[in-house]
Parts: sequence; C-alpha cells; structure tokens
Amino acid sequence: MLAHRLIERKRDGGRIDPGEWRALALAYAKGHVPDYQMAALLMACFLRGLDRAETAALTEAMLVSGDRLDLAHIGRPRIDKHSTGGVGDKVSLVLAPLVASVGVAVPMMSGRSLGHTGGTLDKLESIPGFRTDLTLEEARAQIEQHGCAMIGQTPEIAPADKKMYALRDATATVESIPLIAASIMSKKLAEDLTGLVLDMKRGSGAFIPDLDRVLDLADVMIKLGADHGCPCVALVTAMDRPLGRACGNSLEVEEAIAALRGEGPADLMEVTYALGAEMLILAGVAKEIEEAKRELEKAIATGRAAERFQRIIEAQGGNPGVVDDPSILPQAAECEIFTAPRRGFVARVEPRTIGRGIVDMGGRTLVDDRADPAVGFVITARPGDWIEGGEPIATIFARDRASVAAGKTALRSAFVIAEEAEPPLPLISHRVTASGAELYRSE
Amino acid sequence: MLAHRLIERKRDGGRIDPGEWRALALAYAKGHVPDYQMAALLMACFLRGLDRAETAALTEAMLVSGDRLDLAHIGRPRIDKHSTGGVGDKVSLVLAPLVASVGVAVPMMSGRSLGHTGGTLDKLESIPGFRTDLTLEEARAQIEQHGCAMIGQTPEIAPADKKMYALRDATATVESIPLIAASIMSKKLAEDLTGLVLDMKRGSGAFIPDLDRVLDLADVMIKLGADHGCPCVALVTAMDRPLGRACGNSLEVEEAIAALRGEGPADLMEVTYALGAEMLILAGVAKEIEEAKRELEKAIATGRAAERFQRIIEAQGGNPGVVDDPSILPQAAECEIFTAPRRGFVARVEPRTIGRGIVDMGGRTLVDDRADPAVGFVITARPGDWIEGGEPIATIFARDRASVAAGKTALRSAFVIAEEAEPPLPLISHRVTASGAELYRSE
Repeated sequence: MLAHRLIERKRDGGRIDPGEWRALALAYAKGHVPDYQMAALLMACFLRGLDRAETAALTEAMLVSGDRLDLAHIGRPRIDKHSTGGVGDKVSLVLAPLVASVGVAVPMMSGRSLGHTGGTLDKLESIPGFRTDLTLEEARAQIEQHGCAMIGQTPEIAPADKKMYALRDATATVESIPLIAASIMSKKLAEDLTGLVLDMKRGSGAFIPDLDRVLDLADVMIKLGADHGCPCVALVTAMDRPLGRACGNSLEVEEAIAALRGEGPADLMEVTYALGAEMLILAGVAKEIEEAKRELEKAIATGRAAERFQRIIEAQGGNPGVVDDPSILPQAAECEIFTAPRRGFVARVEPRTIGRGIVDMGGRTLVDDRADPAVGFVITARPGDWIEGGEPIATIFARDRASVAAGKTALRSAFVIAEEAEPPLPLISHRVTASGAELYRSE
Repeated sequence: MLAHRLIERKRDGGRIDPGEWRALALAYAKGHVPDYQMAALLMACFLRGLDRAETAALTEAMLVSGDRLDLAHIGRPRIDKHSTGGVGDKVSLVLAPLVASVGVAVPMMSGRSLGHTGGTLDKLESIPGFRTDLTLEEARAQIEQHGCAMIGQTPEIAPADKKMYALRDATATVESIPLIAASIMSKKLAEDLTGLVLDMKRGSGAFIPDLDRVLDLADVMIKLGADHGCPCVALVTAMDRPLGRACGNSLEVEEAIAALRGEGPADLMEVTYALGAEMLILAGVAKEIEEAKRELEKAIATGRAAERFQRIIEAQGGNPGVVDDPSILPQAAECEIFTAPRRGFVARVEPRTIGRGIVDMGGRTLVDDRADPAVGFVITARPGDWIEGGEPIATIFARDRASVAAGKTALRSAFVIAEEAEPPLPLISHRVTASGAELYRSE
C-alpha cells in the first residue's frame, strides 16, 4: 500500500518525504515492491520532477539501502572521477593509475556500456584475466596497498539504485536530471570519498546534449556532494565527436596505455590533465592547476603512472605484461582501412553513430558471451580537418566480413563531409563548483 | 524494443498510432511485454493523455486482442447497461431480467467490487450455486434461450484490457478518462451490442466525482460506441449517497428481488426505470420515454420480470427459489440496529465510508474465500431527513462482534448530522447523447 500511495501522490505533483523514500528504497531492494509499481513511480518522477530536497532524500535512501566502502582509516585523500558517459571516453583508464601514482587514493567504481556509450568495466575486462568483480573487502585492501581499485558496483553498494537503474533503462526513464543525479551520487557517496571530479559531457553524443541541462545536472550533483561533506568540481567537456582516436574496448585500453606513456592523442591528454589537476587540488596535493598538471606530466614522463597501472592490473588478476606489450590484448580478426568518400572538410563525426556501430559490429558489452572485445574503430580524421577523396580517415577492426560491413555503414553515416565546417564545441567549456559555473580557461 | 520506443514517445507527449497500439496490446496479452514496461506507459498515458483518435485506437486494439460474443444471428436488439460504479448500486440485477422480459436481449458482462464500490458479480455469487463464469458458448446459448446472461469478463474477451486493468489498479493509473473509456468500451463492444446505456455516477462516491469530467468521459465513450455502430445514451446519476437502502452483497440481491416485485425503494426504481426506458428506446421497442416506462412497470406488475430473473438464476446454476424466498440467501450471524447519535438533519451519508466499512467488516469480494456475502448495511435515513437522537437509522449485518464494531465505526463516520442540510445532488441530472449533454427532465 505504501507504494500505491506514493505513486498516486507523485502522479498528482506532490512530494515524497525522506522517511518514505527510505522505506520505499529498502522495500524495493528486498523485492517487497514489484518492478511494475516502481516503473509507474519512476515515470511519474520523470514527468513531475523531484525538487532538490526530494532528490537529496532519494540519494540518501539509495545510499543507505546498502553498505559503504569505509576507507577513513587509510589516512590519505580519496578522490574519484565520474563521467556522464561518451564514445571513446577512456579517461578513467588513464586517470585512476595516474592520480594514484602521485599519492591520492582512487576508489573507482565504474559502469558498463549503456546505449551508444562505452563502459569502463567492459574495457578493463578486455585485459586477459582482469577481474572487476572484487568484493568490498578486496577493494579496500587493494586501495590500501596500491592506492587504487577499479571495480563495478558490488551487490552491497546501493542495491536499490542497482535495480532501479536497470528498470529505468527498460522503461525510458533514464534522462531525468534528479534520477540521474541521485543514481550517480548514491554510488559515489558509498565510496567514502573526500572529493569528486565530474566530467559532464555535452553535445550530440551525450545522454543530456543540452548545455543548460548539463549545468543544471552538475549543480544538483555538486550540492548533493556538499550535503554529504564531499566537495565536487565539474568540468563540461565536448561529446559532439569521439574523444581520442580509439573507440572499442581493447582499442581503448591500448590508447589508454599509450597515454600513460605520454603518447596519447592531444584531446585525450588535455581532458585527462584537466580532470586530474582538479583531483589533485581537491586532494590538497597541489595548490593550483598549473602545478597539478606539472605533477601529473612528471608522473607520466618518469613512467610512474604506467607502472602503477601494471600493479593495479596485476592486483586484479590481469596480465600486467599488457602495459609493455599491448599485442597481448585480443586482436581483431579483420582490419580494413576506411577512406574518405570525397574531398572536403570533416563537418561532423557523430559519436552516437560510432557507438551504435560498435554494437552492430558485435563489440559491446562483454557480459554478453558473444561480444568481441577487439572490434571497433581508430578514427584519425577530426572535425575541422580538410581531407581528400580516397584519403584514409579511419581503420575498422572487426570480427568477420559482416562485422566489417557493419563498421563501414556506421562510418559512412557518422562522417559528414562538407564544403564548410562549423567549429566543433570547445573541448572543455565550463568549470562548475558549489559557487556556480564559469567559462573554463585553459592555458 | 517496440515498448521502449512507445513509452519514450508518449513520455515526450507524442502519439501512438493504431498499428502500434494493436501490436502492443497483442504482445502484452501474450506476455511478450513485461508489466513494468506497461506500467511506465500507463503512467505516461495518465499524465500526457490520449487524444480521441488514440483512445479509439487503444479501444480497438484491446477489443481485437480477443474474441467477440457474436450474437448477430439471434435477430433481436441487444442492449446492455454499464455503470461507472457506486455503493448500493444494484440496478444491473433489476434491469437485466426486467429488460429481457420485454423482448430485448441483454448480454450483460459485469465486474467485481473495486475499491469502495460493489461489483455485480460478487452480488450474484451470493445466490447459492450461481455461476458467473460461463463460457462464451454457454452465454450465447443462454441469451438465445432466455434473452439474458449475467457473466464476468471471460478470458477470451479483451485479454489485453483484463491484464491492463489489474495493472492500473496496482499502479495508481485508474482515474484517467481515456484509459477508463477504452477499458469499458473494449469489453462492451465485444458483446456485439446494438445499443448501450451508460449510468455515469457523479459525486463524492464516484471514481470521477467532478461533473465536467463525468460529462467528458460520457462523451468519449459515446463517440467510441458510435465509431463501432453501437449507439449509446448516458444518464448522469447521483453517487453522493448510496443508491437504495441495502449495501452489501446478499442484502443488495434481496433489495433487487423486492424491486422486481414492485417493492423497491423510490430512488432505485427511478434510476432503474430511467435507464431501462433508454434501453427500450435504443432497442426500438418503445418510441418515447413514458411509453417505455409503462412497459417496464407492466413487466414488474405482472410478475414477468421476477419470473425472468428466476429463469436466469436457474440457467446459471443458482437456486431460483431465492426469488420467492430471499431467506435462502446467506444470512448474517449478527444484526444490530444503529441509532442516531443526536437530533438534526441528515447532511450526508458518505458512500465511500459505507463501501470501505463493508470491506472492513469482511464482506467484499467473494473471490476471497474468507469474505462473507451476508455482511453490510440497510440504511433507512436519507440526506435531508430530520431525525431524532436515538432513532433507528440503519441496521448492521455482520459476521461477528468485531465486524459489528467495524460497521458501527463506519456508520458513525458516514453519517453527518447537522442543524441545516444542503440539498443532495439531483438523482438524475443529465442525459448525454452523440449530440451533447442536456439537463434531464423527469416527469
């Protein structure tokens, strides 16, 4: 009866109070509230909205539906980074070992591929032997020893969110700012962080493309963090084109390893350093951005960052040799160069089309046994580039000829070549803190 | 994927086209679309609405998700009556045999108790042996022979509606005009009618209390009927107090039998004759209201109507002796007179409180084995009556002392006694046809 009463009230635009959210989240996590009632409530929340107080109450309710990581005893700042999701976004793979290598603990809990976007867990699992399903106890021990663990949402962490997230995916209730904010923050707050950096994607390939709504989401999350003593900083970054060159699970691991060795593409490095610098400042390890970036560049130049990735891989059961020899990663059965169909400016490289292409090629979520981690694209032409007809602009990595064909179809549709090209979105456009949003100044 | 796309579209205020509704209803009836997706869609429909064309498409989709009764060959007009539900509303029990006794076929498919309202099926099943679960074949044969069958929604009739109705009850998506209209009309159109009379309840005890919304619902249903060649007439009747005196399953059967013998309370008879007259006119059996009412009065005065009820009861396995001797009905273990707590005008007899009281006394749905068909109330004081303190105003029929106590609590709260009394709603206020609503003129 509780659920029915709350659905009815939210349907009519009313508010659900903290005690009710708590009772509902617990009952749902335990299976006492059926999915169909929760689905109706989620749609009512999607359409009627939740105010700030309700969003905070839902976050808290999902958080306390499970356990926390409890890391206070390790005596080091604990900072994580969260991205709202994109295509080619392998920043987490670079950032976690990089930041850990300068003395900050990074308890990183990531997700799987969703829709057209890639997932950090799927990428990591393309490393032979790598386990992302550590227990909370194993994760805690590894963070103590190596300063970082890269895991999935364990069954103990925010179980109400875990069920609700799957249900939202099936019921078209994903793109709601309060529901997104509560879902992300209930998990992040369970990591017992001392600070959190948010990578807020905007543009056609982001779940929330529109800048105003992205800033609104950032603001909601930052305030939820502040309520729980977890200061947050958000950078708004471009997802109107893929980030870096590689798109696809093992291809992105390879590019992340290159980045850790100082050989990453410029856009990937710029975003990584910018987010990493915010992490170091939140951690109190650096006082200002330039100093923090120099610290990170040094960790890469000296090989400390790459070495830290090796240790993390080894600790999680993966083959650490991959960092020195990426050919250990699964290799695609078929490779084919994709050439420009005609001359002109690259007007767009549409991330959604690229991401869906990888799904069509059979390369997405590795939980699916039939998925091939090696498929994907390496895209070398970028928006604004001038290209000649017949010039190579990408490489397709595929499982078989049908998969090559699917890849070609995706690239043909993703690349828009025109006489003129609008400038793409600025790579990093805004910085948002508890005191508001400002234009991002890169030097 | 179909369901997800349709949820998304309706969520954003878009339209679902007839082919999509048909595919969805079929897939849902077959269990290929899970309840949680349908629940999200229903909430989106509730909040975003369905326009007339969509409501028609949903009605059609639910209708063709199953079979029809197919009665064209019987060569008689086939008219049913539907009520939107109330407390003490035993009109169907009187009207079906009465109208059948003057030569009109009445294929009556009714529902169970819902919330505070009673259900015709539950009432009929208080007659020893009475079966409401006839097959379509049995119902057809009985209508041919006796002009009437009084049954529940069979598994073949609008199965998509049957599942959706249960889901709406659990997900607070009942009170939506397009969803109500589509649900009712998909069942009624499956009865293969040549006309339908609607009893639209208004007032505090109706599911939709507000007159404007009641008229809107009537209009939607009448147009849905017209689209399918089934002319409809609606009367708007009062549900700000119970109809008649008896409330409770076997008590209402007893009052219905009294009505068939010409001994029913005035308000029940007035509503019954008014609806019955509309049925006869739709059937072409009478030309105008007064003539039709005289015809119905004659059927009661001559005993033909009561005799027809006997035949129907017998045909459906019940004990026909109940019409001559209502004491064959289940009798309550406890009876207690309820007296007025003080003198004054009866300002209100709140139907929701009465209906919920019967549930609390253990007397509601007979599908529930533990329910007792004999519990309920006979309420003799009516809104507007002047009563003295200590005067008997109702009788409680209960299963045990606890049930008596629950009944008293309900009556104490349902009766409002005051120095002055606003006049209650007019018993029949409006008549609605395809050309619009007009004030009802009773003579």
